[in-house]
Amino acid sequence: MADPSTCPPLTPSSIHSAYHKIKRYIHRTPLQTSTSLDAIASSPDPTVYLSDSPPSVAPKFRLWFKCENFQKIGAFKARGAFHAVTRLVEELGLEEVRRRGVVTHSSGNHAQALALAAHTFSIPSYIVMPTISTASKIAGTRLYTPNVIFSGSTSQEREAVVADVIRDKGAILVPPYDHPDIILGQGTAGLEMEEQFREASGTGTDANASGAATAPAPALDAVIAPLGGGGLLGGTATYFSDKPGTLVFGAEPSFQGGDDGRRGLLTGKRVEHVKTLTIADGLRTPVGITNWSIISDKRKVEGLYAVTEDEIKMAMRLVYERMKVVVEPSGCVGLAVVLFNAEFREMVVQKQKQGKEDVWDVGIVFSGGNTTMKALSKLFADDDVQGGEPEVAKEREEGTVAMDGTRDVEDVAG
Amino acid sequence: MADPSTCPPLTPSSIHSAYHKIKRYIHRTPLQTSTSLDAIASSPDPTVYLSDSPPSVAPKFRLWFKCENFQKIGAFKARGAFHAVTRLVEELGLEEVRRRGVVTHSSGNHAQALALAAHTFSIPSYIVMPTISTASKIAGTRLYTPNVIFSGSTSQEREAVVADVIRDKGAILVPPYDHPDIILGQGTAGLEMEEQFREASGTGTDANASGAATAPAPALDAVIAPLGGGGLLGGTATYFSDKPGTLVFGAEPSFQGGDDGRRGLLTGKRVEHVKTLTIADGLRTPVGITNWSIISDKRKVEGLYAVTEDEIKMAMRLVYERMKVVVEPSGCVGLAVVLFNAEFREMVVQKQKQGKEDVWDVGIVFSGGNTTMKALSKLFADDDVQGGEPEVAKEREEGTVAMDGTRDVEDVAG
Repeated sequence: MADPSTCPPLTPSSIHSAYHKIKRYIHRTPLQTSTSLDAIASSPDPTVYLSDSPPSVAPKFRLWFKCENFQKIGAFKARGAFHAVTRLVEELGLEEVRRRGVVTHSSGNHAQALALAAHTFSIPSYIVMPTISTASKIAGTRLYTPNVIFSGSTSQEREAVVADVIRDKGAILVPPYDHPDIILGQGTAGLEMEEQFREASGTGTDANASGAATAPAPALDAVIAPLGGGGLLGGTATYFSDKPGTLVFGAEPSFQGGDDGRRGLLTGKRVEHVKTLTIADGLRTPVGITNWSIISDKRKVEGLYAVTEDEIKMAMRLVYERMKVVVEPSGCVGLAVVLFNAEFREMVVQKQKQGKEDVWDVGIVFSGGNTTMKALSKLFADDDVQGGEPEVAKEREEGTVAMDGTRDVEDVAG
Repeated sequence: MADPSTCPPLTPSSIHSAYHKIKRYIHRTPLQTSTSLDAIASSPDPTVYLSDSPPSVAPKFRLWFKCENFQKIGAFKARGAFHAVTRLVEELGLEEVRRRGVVTHSSGNHAQALALAAHTFSIPSYIVMPTISTASKIAGTRLYTPNVIFSGSTSQEREAVVADVIRDKGAILVPPYDHPDIILGQGTAGLEMEEQFREASGTGTDANASGAATAPAPALDAVIAPLGGGGLLGGTATYFSDKPGTLVFGAEPSFQGGDDGRRGLLTGKRVEHVKTLTIADGLRTPVGITNWSIISDKRKVEGLYAVTEDEIKMAMRLVYERMKVVVEPSGCVGLAVVLFNAEFREMVVQKQKQGKEDVWDVGIVFSGGNTTMKALSKLFADDDVQGGEPEVAKEREEGTVAMDGTRDVEDVAG
């Protein structure tokens, strides 16, 4: 990995530079909206949003979904991997990086993202995977690299194999999240999100768009991203760090202590070990060290909120049935917080009472879409979420989603 | 319903007029692409697209997915319903239509589409639904109309109740597919598809786009739409009827004789009764009379092809896992034909051998996305589609989908 001491600083302008480097290799994923999810999120109790319960106070939202589920390899991880690789090439020269290759241990999205990024530059990549990895993930990684190397499944065993590869091949380690280059790469999702929000609000940064005098650019009131290792949230918070009008929040699963970030903030100390089998499998890792330095900085991250497994599943169901898009469980935690976390919702109500914004524009990062029909089917098999609510409400479907990033067309009374 | 004798003729220019009328009420749904589905479709045997079997002849495709699953009420039906209602208003005057109201019998997407369209113009709508309809569908329809009227479940019983409503209220019948206004409305999906294909190919119809001399506009080589009652396929075929460069095909489920259109073509006679429980539940109806006059016209529809339940499910799984979008089974039959129907694929191979086009640009209509997690989970529960293929291939994911209608960014070798 590029020497952290020579890395660009963790600032918004470094994210602009990162974006310039990786732009041609990644998708500019769409920023979508959903009338029905706005209505549900803005109702007093989203769990029973069609009930006849008396109206009570509710926060008001316009939600903007950044669809990294449509990103290359199906997740935001492509951003960090391409940035890390382009930075290595810049620092060491292409020939040197090609000679040595890159290495990581992962059986998830980072493995594939790194293998793809390396493959793009004809750089060999060595991916250390536990022997117990599923055949499909091994085969998937092999599409971009012939060098899948097996190890035991504990971190010590995996790290020992990585150390061997580094010693034998001189390969350069590209860690999944705990490195400035990765964080800056992931932060480009925040940059694009803001850019697209402005375009949709009619004040794109494109100077050609209007010759009129420049009004203050509209800002997202809040952004919420999933928190696992902290690359995505750390990068997003870094990008918005000089934009006090946009509050940045993190979302975690609470199952079996998966909310290590939130717990760390309570004690003022990073939680180093996490062992959870939450369905949000991309968020099972503890927050990284560099990432923690950003996330624990109150000026950068306004707060962390956690949700239950059932809340994640309920959010996921709404995303499928209303927006008709496939998002993996880890990608749904941000929306789950907005819909179901009472503390978060109360906080927004209070801020809306005080502030001038009646309705908050909230950017939610759908971090990835890598799941299978088999996994989905299993996840919802013994579910009998009845009471009519979700299914009844589904039928309300009407202004599903405007794919061009603009607001949905509303019904127009004749 | 507007008197068929005063309806606009079934021509492309009537579809342009229809589009002009309904444009403000519907979504311009995106036209998406997928590098990985192109690769799968263009491989010799898409059922084992990662096998090491020796290469054989395969058709070559670039696929363009028209995402009506993102349409209002989650299906293309909104187009026909809005067109039928605006035509009624035009012909009888808004006050008259408001006084009388509109009526239909359906428990599916047409019921909701008509209720929404009527509601938009403050026109009362009466929706006759069988008492055995699921609670969620009844509740969904009730969001747009208080007038849900119950009947028995046979067609005779339902039609008797409709007749009562017409007699008592003077309400105007809006049938689900067998009417020119409905057909013309659904045809706007074809119009948009062509428009978006041209935009993506860099030669939009927008005169501002280029001042250069006009080259011949690029054309889709083929378009394939699901065939149930025939509104969508009939409208699409009508739209392309003056464009011989674009062949129009229909796709049907073969289960329990669901391929009534194909069987009708073989005998030269419309099949009047169909009783199938295919998972493609939107395609269980026989082709309508007006629709048949279009579909059986060889100058308008080049051919009809049928697929099995397993082929529909396999296509559906690919759409979810690769494109990350939710499409209902009925919406996946077109893709299933392209991937798995040997007769269709051989036909394309032969035409490609003869013609000048090496790769066909094929527009596929994803007709709707109205399914539930519960239904999905049930559909794939006892599935153990192993052999590695679909799951292994899934991981190939790389250039999932370009949402702006342009081609995906391909890997760029360094």
